[in-house]
Amino acid sequence: MRMAELSAAAGIPVATIKYYMREGILPAGEHSGPNQASYGDSHVRRLRLIRGLIDVGGLSVAATRRVIDAIDSDHTLAETFDVAQRTVSDELDPASLDPAALHRIDDLLAGWHLYPGNPGRLAAARVLTTFESVGQSDERGWFRRYAEAALIVAEDLDEIDARDDRDSKVETVIVGTVLGDALFAALRRAAQEHVTTKRYGAPQSPIAHPQKPRE
Amino acid sequence: MRMAELSAAAGIPVATIKYYMREGILPAGEHSGPNQASYGDSHVRRLRLIRGLIDVGGLSVAATRRVIDAIDSDHTLAETFDVAQRTVSDELDPASLDPAALHRIDDLLAGWHLYPGNPGRLAAARVLTTFESVGQSDERGWFRRYAEAALIVAEDLDEIDARDDRDSKVETVIVGTVLGDALFAALRRAAQEHVTTKRYGAPQSPIAHPQKPRE
Repeated sequence: MRMAELSAAAGIPVATIKYYMREGILPAGEHSGPNQASYGDSHVRRLRLIRGLIDVGGLSVAATRRVIDAIDSDHTLAETFDVAQRTVSDELDPASLDPAALHRIDDLLAGWHLYPGNPGRLAAARVLTTFESVGQSDERGWFRRYAEAALIVAEDLDEIDARDDRDSKVETVIVGTVLGDALFAALRRAAQEHVTTKRYGAPQSPIAHPQKPRE
Repeated sequence: MRMAELSAAAGIPVATIKYYMREGILPAGEHSGPNQASYGDSHVRRLRLIRGLIDVGGLSVAATRRVIDAIDSDHTLAETFDVAQRTVSDELDPASLDPAALHRIDDLLAGWHLYPGNPGRLAAARVLTTFESVGQSDERGWFRRYAEAALIVAEDLDEIDARDDRDSKVETVIVGTVLGDALFAALRRAAQEHVTTKRYGAPQSPIAHPQKPRE
């Protein structure tokens, strides 16, 4: 198909598609004549992936390039995970973190197979320090419940085994890592409303949703 | 204390502190003489909260203002939740979402007390649509496990009951909503590495962490 058809098929403006090509996250089309290129279904699929990562996953174009490069490379699954994890995590210098907080996270995750540089381990220590700096604490032990819930969710790796070939396995790793965060955060909001309503009743005067509660 | 002392106590440059005051997220000091103001511990605490929300929670200054306003208002707990949830969620027009995806999310969350406008319900439907648009599916039923894990995590509302007064309850709602996302995402990365290593072994050539795995 031509560029105009690709734009229509993916629902993305031509200028944006050309920008993605310049940024190296969408392959060029096949040369099909002077100043003409043709595009295939793989371009439509790739565009959907790019928009999902950016619009729903909240990645920057630069971060999207890193994970797309991982898909297009010959990384092993474990290496792809590593790239995906680092792309969705702030880069933290372990030396900038409170050793006591790191120690408490290590206690919490005792028995887990982790490299010391695991971005989640470092980020969790930073959150712990921040919680305490604003006068919050973990009196009721819910950090542990977060860790238990994280283990449940991490079993979604099953989904990778359900894929046939290396390329779709790797794509599942990337999409699962990036969109899984978005999915879990969304479900947590819904669960919060459910638990709040059960405990405290429905808001007397809902600020932003005048609709009736669903029964 | 004077501005210079506040800056030292909070570890934040004077220019940044003045910016937060102009933005209305940090109250002015108490007038203590011509061109002089004095600041108290409440300013230090507020600055820590602002930095936690921005640096660790990833909020913008505008979003931080919305949740700080909620803390400083006389909203009920349920109303504060509503503000916190909306601040950390993209605003989605239900009409822009695929009705079939919304229907499937409603099936998944059957029995939960939810307003139709709950931002998590809408965001989850968008993630579902995005997953499917990139050729992923939920063959192994892990959406349901995400929902179960979200319910476990939402029980952290316990922590609110552990607070004495309305102000610290409300602050716990805000901090828990914003930083809880960061904490869970961090623990999910750690859990992913743990589960991946258990299943597939350690990466042959870790790309970015040459350290030995922790035993």
